[in-house]
Amino acid sequence: MAVLYLSSDSRRGEIFAESFARALPDLPFHIGSAPDPAAVEFLVAWTAPADLGQAYPNLRVIFSVGAGVDQLDLATVPPQVLVVRMLEPGIPQQMREFVALATLALHRDLPLYISRQRQALWQPGESRPAAERRVGVMGLGQLGQAVLDALAPFGFQLGGWSRSLRSLPGVESFTELPAFLSRTDILICLLPLTPETRGILDAGLFAGLPPGAGLVHVGRGGHLDQQALLAALDSGRLSAAWLDVTDPEPLPREHPLWAHPRVVITPHVATRVGAAEGAAHVIAGIRAYRAGRSIPGLVDRARGY
Amino acid sequence: MAVLYLSSDSRRGEIFAESFARALPDLPFHIGSAPDPAAVEFLVAWTAPADLGQAYPNLRVIFSVGAGVDQLDLATVPPQVLVVRMLEPGIPQQMREFVALATLALHRDLPLYISRQRQALWQPGESRPAAERRVGVMGLGQLGQAVLDALAPFGFQLGGWSRSLRSLPGVESFTELPAFLSRTDILICLLPLTPETRGILDAGLFAGLPPGAGLVHVGRGGHLDQQALLAALDSGRLSAAWLDVTDPEPLPREHPLWAHPRVVITPHVATRVGAAEGAAHVIAGIRAYRAGRSIPGLVDRARGY
Repeated sequence: MAVLYLSSDSRRGEIFAESFARALPDLPFHIGSAPDPAAVEFLVAWTAPADLGQAYPNLRVIFSVGAGVDQLDLATVPPQVLVVRMLEPGIPQQMREFVALATLALHRDLPLYISRQRQALWQPGESRPAAERRVGVMGLGQLGQAVLDALAPFGFQLGGWSRSLRSLPGVESFTELPAFLSRTDILICLLPLTPETRGILDAGLFAGLPPGAGLVHVGRGGHLDQQALLAALDSGRLSAAWLDVTDPEPLPREHPLWAHPRVVITPHVATRVGAAEGAAHVIAGIRAYRAGRSIPGLVDRARGY
Repeated sequence: MAVLYLSSDSRRGEIFAESFARALPDLPFHIGSAPDPAAVEFLVAWTAPADLGQAYPNLRVIFSVGAGVDQLDLATVPPQVLVVRMLEPGIPQQMREFVALATLALHRDLPLYISRQRQALWQPGESRPAAERRVGVMGLGQLGQAVLDALAPFGFQLGGWSRSLRSLPGVESFTELPAFLSRTDILICLLPLTPETRGILDAGLFAGLPPGAGLVHVGRGGHLDQQALLAALDSGRLSAAWLDVTDPEPLPREHPLWAHPRVVITPHVATRVGAAEGAAHVIAGIRAYRAGRSIPGLVDRARGY
């Protein structure tokens, strides 16, 4: 048996290799390709080849190097293969600070001031108290809860939307999307990307928000209809947006979102998995698998996350 | 006796007048000028005329409409006149969120990404964990403490500098500037502007910071040597700066800070006194004065704040 690590980042691969050599010295660890593909039981990768079942006939577990598994085409993964997403303690911490940054930026009209700075224009505006600002998070898993926890001390009115009703202290919980949207001044998308959530941020959704709402998008590019976003910004339905994800990535240089005066674009930097911490998560997962225990981060393939 | 309110903002003056009519109906309240200057005991103003003692011979108290009093030339204020600065509960709340925004922005390299967005350049960088980022606040009064409290949940290493040693939980306290600067990756200036602090953010101070440090300036424009800031940015001593105050304000359109790729400029919007809440503070001060009690916000004229 062996582990195969597929990644374009050789430095991260080396850190994984060192962690494996220390923690599981008897388990061969290969980077890029395996001398005996039939020995590969564990795959660590961002995406996987389409002929996975034939290439690695004895594959048992795929570990995603990202927090999501939407980049894997689960239809090509043989049904007996387990799929595990990355759980790394640094991810919720980074998401907390990044979404607090983006939410405070929209709350305090930073996109407007960035635009005025480009014109050398000193023009102060009014700001609303946080207590009058209704912030809503789509997706109430580990990351959504970490984000709500970070926003709470600022005094925002907090709401959350998810498939099943959650009981979170200080957060108004919704399962019905229209009711959630109509009370949300700043919308934060932290959903996993699944067939059900693909394209969910569309013209119909924007129309359900109060006029002048803001969008913080830290989910996946595939959630967002970018043309509908541009139209909603230009009609005034949305006042501003902060996008950390786009479709495709990188966003093409000629795309009109880059130059829009009320859009902030960051190049998918909300969270980044630490190499050593990521290796520790995979090692713990392999140990759990071998011991017959439940694997942290195991994906429900029917749900897609 | 009477109150004279001097302000260029007529809407705010009207809100003050309404508050006074309800709370102190027997006290005449004038906006802009008083029919009998000798009756003016209380002045509510941002700046005061130079001939204050002659213009209002029976003046007892000047209430600043701002959180600071540095804009008043205290040398022209007769010694028996009390000077009171604005304490308004919304100010610490707004400062908390604004400085959290600016600090998280520098922590997560937002000035760099704003600059790359202008070039339509998708280029992710690495970010440091908050636990490895040393944030330092100059000025540990009410606002400095509110800011430290807002930053604590993100896990930064917190330090503070003030004239006298403070004991704040989770904050390393300094009275010696060099020791404070040498451990500060993101410097936040929240000092009052006094003869002692004027020009304190100069080349010598920047040289005491670790290379690549960032500056969040929410004090007063007079604290900062703007030419020294430009030189420190260009030499790499400072990586980025967020300025909410400049000297002069507005910053002239041709000033090189406007277009600097690693500078964010906001037009003095960190805090804004609520008109009704500000009026309530002044009314409480007048009541305290009349009852012989201590006035909230009374300035120590020897210290200047």
